[in-house]
Amino acid sequence: MARKYELECPIASTLDIIGDRWAILILRDFFLHGARRFQEFEATLPGLTPSVLSARLKSLEVDGVIATRTYEMHPPRVEYFLTPKGRELGPILRAMRRWGERHARGDHAGANEDG
Amino acid sequence: MARKYELECPIASTLDIIGDRWAILILRDFFLHGARRFQEFEATLPGLTPSVLSARLKSLEVDGVIATRTYEMHPPRVEYFLTPKGRELGPILRAMRRWGERHARGDHAGANEDG
Repeated sequence: MARKYELECPIASTLDIIGDRWAILILRDFFLHGARRFQEFEATLPGLTPSVLSARLKSLEVDGVIATRTYEMHPPRVEYFLTPKGRELGPILRAMRRWGERHARGDHAGANEDG
Repeated sequence: MARKYELECPIASTLDIIGDRWAILILRDFFLHGARRFQEFEATLPGLTPSVLSARLKSLEVDGVIATRTYEMHPPRVEYFLTPKGRELGPILRAMRRWGERHARGDHAGANEDG
């Protein structure tokens, strides 16, 4: 993924790698389902086109968050999986899940509170 | 921010609100600096245009993550601040910071490991 920020900030560094919405949802699927084939993302991520999926997987691979392994079958089976660096993204996704569970879509409670 | 996903998933719900890179960096500034005026973001977020900043602040306000207060001065002083719902995003940003500190930009160690 392109380096978009000229900021020496670890949050910006993280966003350089996982700052794309689809990237995070792709990572979510790895945490939920483990190693995956390209086609398996289609079932869980409606709206994600093959070209965008391909670009995001390549970007995550270049950044060392995921890697691939190939099984010598006919046809060959290629699987994507999280690297150790990728698995360490778990706390970010868990924090996102917790916040989403607590503040469901459309819940604007607290909008005008100060405290 | 537009609802981009047709997914009943709390992570997707969270991304609907903070899935934009600039939104997360704006939130970072609230956690670092507290209540802020519009102009103060310019110093800490080079590259963020006023129109994008304005759109992101409005979106975060509509979603109840930030709110505004106005001080009756000449000229009036408007401050943006995190709501309680917004402050609960702290664990997500802390997890991003920790990951970024550990996996600095350009560090691709672990890319080909499986384990």
